[in-house]
Amino acid sequence: MEIITLLGTALPIIQAPMAGVQGSALAIAVSNAGGLGSLPCAMLSADALRSELHAIRGATDRPFNLNFFCHTPPQPDAARETAWRACLRPYHAEFGIDPDTISAGPGRAPFTADIADLIEAFRPPVVSFHFGLPSPQLLARIKSWGTKVLSSATTVEEAVWLANAGVDAVIAQGLEAGGHRGMFLNMDMSTQCGLFALLRRIVRAVDVPVIAAGGIADAAGVTAAMTLGAAGVQVGTAYLLCPEATTSAVHRASLGSAAASHTALTNLFTGRPARGIVNRLIAEQGPFSPAAPDFPLATSAVAPLRAAAEARGSGDFSPLWCGQHPPLMPGLDAAAITRALAGLAPG
Amino acid sequence: MEIITLLGTALPIIQAPMAGVQGSALAIAVSNAGGLGSLPCAMLSADALRSELHAIRGATDRPFNLNFFCHTPPQPDAARETAWRACLRPYHAEFGIDPDTISAGPGRAPFTADIADLIEAFRPPVVSFHFGLPSPQLLARIKSWGTKVLSSATTVEEAVWLANAGVDAVIAQGLEAGGHRGMFLNMDMSTQCGLFALLRRIVRAVDVPVIAAGGIADAAGVTAAMTLGAAGVQVGTAYLLCPEATTSAVHRASLGSAAASHTALTNLFTGRPARGIVNRLIAEQGPFSPAAPDFPLATSAVAPLRAAAEARGSGDFSPLWCGQHPPLMPGLDAAAITRALAGLAPG
Repeated sequence: MEIITLLGTALPIIQAPMAGVQGSALAIAVSNAGGLGSLPCAMLSADALRSELHAIRGATDRPFNLNFFCHTPPQPDAARETAWRACLRPYHAEFGIDPDTISAGPGRAPFTADIADLIEAFRPPVVSFHFGLPSPQLLARIKSWGTKVLSSATTVEEAVWLANAGVDAVIAQGLEAGGHRGMFLNMDMSTQCGLFALLRRIVRAVDVPVIAAGGIADAAGVTAAMTLGAAGVQVGTAYLLCPEATTSAVHRASLGSAAASHTALTNLFTGRPARGIVNRLIAEQGPFSPAAPDFPLATSAVAPLRAAAEARGSGDFSPLWCGQHPPLMPGLDAAAITRALAGLAPG
Repeated sequence: MEIITLLGTALPIIQAPMAGVQGSALAIAVSNAGGLGSLPCAMLSADALRSELHAIRGATDRPFNLNFFCHTPPQPDAARETAWRACLRPYHAEFGIDPDTISAGPGRAPFTADIADLIEAFRPPVVSFHFGLPSPQLLARIKSWGTKVLSSATTVEEAVWLANAGVDAVIAQGLEAGGHRGMFLNMDMSTQCGLFALLRRIVRAVDVPVIAAGGIADAAGVTAAMTLGAAGVQVGTAYLLCPEATTSAVHRASLGSAAASHTALTNLFTGRPARGIVNRLIAEQGPFSPAAPDFPLATSAVAPLRAAAEARGSGDFSPLWCGQHPPLMPGLDAAAITRALAGLAPG
């Protein structure tokens, strides 16, 4: 089945859900332009999620995507947290932050039956997952609504696992991609594969449509991905500078600078590998710290540093998520970017 | 200028030079099939190089490529060598190898004026370099023969540096590529970029033709690379199983097995980052060891382990170079692979 038939969209372009830098406005703009707009839900409270769903339903009758995380929340580990805070102590001191005042950081809740209860009334056309899938029971429930289900694979093994579990399409997340790696079967970073090889190998390994993600920044990238067998593409970084995104000022400044040409996979900001622009924290600590608590617990101790630095106009401690291809269309809005990716005139 | 005009070939397909797994036979077969065959010269003595050049000149009148390394030979570091041998001590004991009997490993000599003297008489149509370029004087001398010069870039910065230095084309080596990373301006692994992003960014950054390398395994990959702006492609792994390659039996067995789907960048075999199939040495030591002496000195202490294991039919200590896309055409010879990559019938 063609991806546009599966998703019900005019264009084979999916806007990648990007928690922390966008809400319904970006999703609505992309859906109304003919792509598939996505709402990142993992950091939303029930009330906020309901409010965003009403906003989307009120602003578009086109298909949209709700994205959720499927991680297993970790048990807090006091020794690990102590070690992590010891790594960050010089920074806390520099900014006058009393470590005893640090509270739990921004949560990332996995998908649950309660969330299914909430979203069922909205009959989301598409739901995508990161870090695997929810339980077979929950997955079956979502599919019973007629909702199409996507999830990310970072290896051939993950793609086969997802296809066997019943997803409608697999997102092949090349290691060029910004933000969190979707890896869930294996956390060995050496398994992570560039899109050129990953996409072609996944296309041969599964029978469901494959959506290419990672390093795609323009229409040529979309065409190349299709040539390699992709049914559609998912693009995130290209949208980070558009007016509908809520990307912070420091993040926008970094994306628009030469710094954006050097990203790294790092576990420093959340505890899970994610790609962002190399900033002071990454440069000084190295991108991977064994002390960083499991996702999402690493966030807590970094959050006040981020806030203090951003208040001074600095992204030194911010997760400056960005793929290996910085945004190419900084002056365009989300609709224009969506059309440009599809090779269409501005419209 | 079109790459086939620049190189004088019928097809925009360059066979990647692969030291240790091929000689003139593979280069001749690819050149006679219309691609650009390459001879890896860094591990050849002067006599062997002269002999291979006579073999090529006697077997084809088509263009061919000679590949050389441009590293600065390191000063031996006794403390580092001792630390490295300590890492390997359990393995030496396991195989009954007396560390005191270990001699210098296979050398990799950088390009020199003596080599220029040797190859000048053969007027090589193309010379490619890895790890940068030789001195401006040597480079000018090579170009004075009418020889076209290529070199590998693993970052946009390296591509710009090479273009400014006067190369005729830049090879964009995506991190999917097997074998040694060509990195020379910066050894920070986080700078290494998937081909999808690297190729597109380099194409925009330089005025010379760009050759795509890494993860390209079939005609669709070639077409996709061209869509992203490549003038041609360089392919290595796809040729490793063909009869003209001298790939060892253990290497062939590994390439044809499920093991080939998991490669890693590692410095264990030579001291420089290179991509190979994850085997026992990589799995047990981790892919990067700070103890490994600088390229190519790390090779010495591993060489007898490799020999002993291979004598038992094991690739546990062999550099099983392979890109992130294992060979797709195991039954074909080099001419058929070259034609298949170009989208031509077997012929």
